[in-house]
Amino acid sequence: MTESIPQPCDLLIEAGWVVPVEPHGAVLEDHAVAIRDGVILALLPAAEARARFAPQRVVSRPDGALIPGLVNAHTHNPMTLLRGVADDLPLKVWLQQHIWPVEAAVIGPEFVADGVTLAIAEMLRGGTTCVNENYFFPDVQAATYRRHGFRARIGLPVIDFPTAWAKTDDEYFDRAGEVHDQWRGDALIDTAFAPHAPYTVSDASFERIRMLADQLDVPVHLHLHETAQEVEQSLAEHGQRPLARLDRLGLVNDRLIAVHMTQVTDAEMHLCAERGVSVVHCPESNLKLASGFCPACALERAGVNLAIGTDGCASNNDLDMIGETRTAAILAKAVAGDAAAFDAATALRAATLGGARAIGFDHLIGSIEPGKQADLACIDLSPLETQPLHHVFSQLVYATGRHQVGDVWIAGREKLVARELVDLDAAAVVANARQWRERIAAIRR
Amino acid sequence: MTESIPQPCDLLIEAGWVVPVEPHGAVLEDHAVAIRDGVILALLPAAEARARFAPQRVVSRPDGALIPGLVNAHTHNPMTLLRGVADDLPLKVWLQQHIWPVEAAVIGPEFVADGVTLAIAEMLRGGTTCVNENYFFPDVQAATYRRHGFRARIGLPVIDFPTAWAKTDDEYFDRAGEVHDQWRGDALIDTAFAPHAPYTVSDASFERIRMLADQLDVPVHLHLHETAQEVEQSLAEHGQRPLARLDRLGLVNDRLIAVHMTQVTDAEMHLCAERGVSVVHCPESNLKLASGFCPACALERAGVNLAIGTDGCASNNDLDMIGETRTAAILAKAVAGDAAAFDAATALRAATLGGARAIGFDHLIGSIEPGKQADLACIDLSPLETQPLHHVFSQLVYATGRHQVGDVWIAGREKLVARELVDLDAAAVVANARQWRERIAAIRR
Repeated sequence: MTESIPQPCDLLIEAGWVVPVEPHGAVLEDHAVAIRDGVILALLPAAEARARFAPQRVVSRPDGALIPGLVNAHTHNPMTLLRGVADDLPLKVWLQQHIWPVEAAVIGPEFVADGVTLAIAEMLRGGTTCVNENYFFPDVQAATYRRHGFRARIGLPVIDFPTAWAKTDDEYFDRAGEVHDQWRGDALIDTAFAPHAPYTVSDASFERIRMLADQLDVPVHLHLHETAQEVEQSLAEHGQRPLARLDRLGLVNDRLIAVHMTQVTDAEMHLCAERGVSVVHCPESNLKLASGFCPACALERAGVNLAIGTDGCASNNDLDMIGETRTAAILAKAVAGDAAAFDAATALRAATLGGARAIGFDHLIGSIEPGKQADLACIDLSPLETQPLHHVFSQLVYATGRHQVGDVWIAGREKLVARELVDLDAAAVVANARQWRERIAAIRR
Repeated sequence: MTESIPQPCDLLIEAGWVVPVEPHGAVLEDHAVAIRDGVILALLPAAEARARFAPQRVVSRPDGALIPGLVNAHTHNPMTLLRGVADDLPLKVWLQQHIWPVEAAVIGPEFVADGVTLAIAEMLRGGTTCVNENYFFPDVQAATYRRHGFRARIGLPVIDFPTAWAKTDDEYFDRAGEVHDQWRGDALIDTAFAPHAPYTVSDASFERIRMLADQLDVPVHLHLHETAQEVEQSLAEHGQRPLARLDRLGLVNDRLIAVHMTQVTDAEMHLCAERGVSVVHCPESNLKLASGFCPACALERAGVNLAIGTDGCASNNDLDMIGETRTAAILAKAVAGDAAAFDAATALRAATLGGARAIGFDHLIGSIEPGKQADLACIDLSPLETQPLHHVFSQLVYATGRHQVGDVWIAGREKLVARELVDLDAAAVVANARQWRERIAAIRR
């Protein structure tokens, strides 16, 4: 190495192991990431980094594994306030007798802002730095994520019946346009269309979404083939399976974020691969609601980009992307009937770069590469629960708990340091959640 | 209440919620458990307890849920030292090219003692207070569990080939008899026969086990119907499915602890229910090794006593009974095709009283009832990840992480206090595991 003047940077993070995700499967021992203006300048051996950079600050984590921040590719975070409000019920009873009546009574800007704030705290404490959101009041969601410096793709809801957010088709589209316009060009927030599901959105609305998504250059985030019943209903009503109907309407392309996909034929997998559709796998929601089994390994082998989502807390009941990734990895093997299927590195890629790609953020995040945003999580592998440390990927995916996430950065800003939230008061978040508990209990009495 | 002299007791534990497991589904707010000589004296409202008892010590956990200590009903804990040594491989490659060569090089008293010690630390930090163990060197296991005051049913291995523990059939039985004899009447340790599996144990050995288990009054702990291949092989070799073969040999009775059971017909379920066979469900191992899906809900509805086990760390890769219980609960719903199946209270019962019953310890542990041993775990529900607290069972099973286990007692003795191990040095345990990492890495080079 030739002598040269060290280059200034804001932050140098040294870790025992860096898992950049790209190249696939790499584990770099004693490496460092140099960051300036929120952007990754370099990833290099720690010793070399000390010589090459003059950082304003050094964070050293010799027992830590530095990974790209996790991307939760499907959730309904305002519903975090409904965590465990009703469980172990048939879907219809759960929705019609519990979730909807409570939502009807509480939904509004305050509920959405408070639910999202609780979710942000939970996600940061679990290594998640980016979310693909799907709920009402996207304006409030966007403002709340922005206030907390959290990266988000915010769904603009479209559904064929009136809600507290909008009453008519035109109102849904008008409000969607307004929210999109308000956040255009933001560094952390972007939008997507979020038609609810094939059974709640008309052909006319889907056609309008197809045109607008192209014009505005945004993804389309949709629950799709979640249950066998959904597919049967579509066959009865439209004479087509939902994916075929969407194809007829021009929506099966690389904008489509297809969530769940527990019902999928080989031909449908190949269609998704060919058209660049991303599938968001939500294994714990699929299990808990008895929706079915998404063939994650077959999709991945067919060449479909796969992402991972927790779904909302009313159905999961957490936003634990580390746990969700483990469930995805082990469930994929059983569904494929192959213990070698969907290995740990593949699962972690789905939870990071796969999610980023699904939501159109892969030029920004999803891997630790120079030029990308410094959205990072550092996981402490020193606790006895991840010892002995024979293989970093195995420990990260099969043994780590989310409480081992020590530090989190979004765009180079510290959001969690040694397990403490930087700009969020955990006690206040809990106190607020407790108030909501009382309010919701009063409604249900 | 009439005035009376307060009754002396060693310890009074007050908790925001007590979940006694028996009666099923009960959640008692602001209750207390009084303990003397390691035994539960009473479970009663906290205010009443303060008047009725004069405790030497009071532990107050207003944000805590007190549950019976979790029972890990199937594991191979010396293998904790092999956590993540090889993953994502086909079963044969995994066993023959990785696990067996490493075991052959390291197995012995030191490996077993160190692996069990690491496991005890991990189990205590996750609320587990009792284990059903299945590995070689049961003498060393028993001594290690006893030394750390941990409750265990120790399997006495029988397998049709020579190992470091014994060379011949006679030697397996002789050594089994010696270990059983040594621990007869111990307060914490008992034994079971642990024939490895139907495909590695002869009819003659099974018959000998049947007779000895009856004479010694111990359970028979057996991997059974773990994979479709096992069932096919038995049909080819014996003309019978393994359960039918065991029935012919007189082993299908209430001593039998049948582990895995991913392949099971309706008739087999009814046979198990009728004969009092317990099934240990190891959902994460079954998924990760692609063994199949145990129909937990159907077994439970057929009246079979169901327990939960993590399996060993070489295949799981953790001893997290809270996570395993969640996986059992959500997977059961998907397998049953019914979101209302196997509810949270049923899952928690399987992880406590079901396990105790399976291993013949239900007169001692598994529920919080006067006269039972004070094996208890207190889970902190105050973190934001389990807020708002709409329902205690939902939070415990669907949202809690094992790091929320704050306090653990076995036979009334503190083993974990405010997350600190009482008589185990976590740093020393980690240092020892790191040494094993180096030794095992050297073998594999």
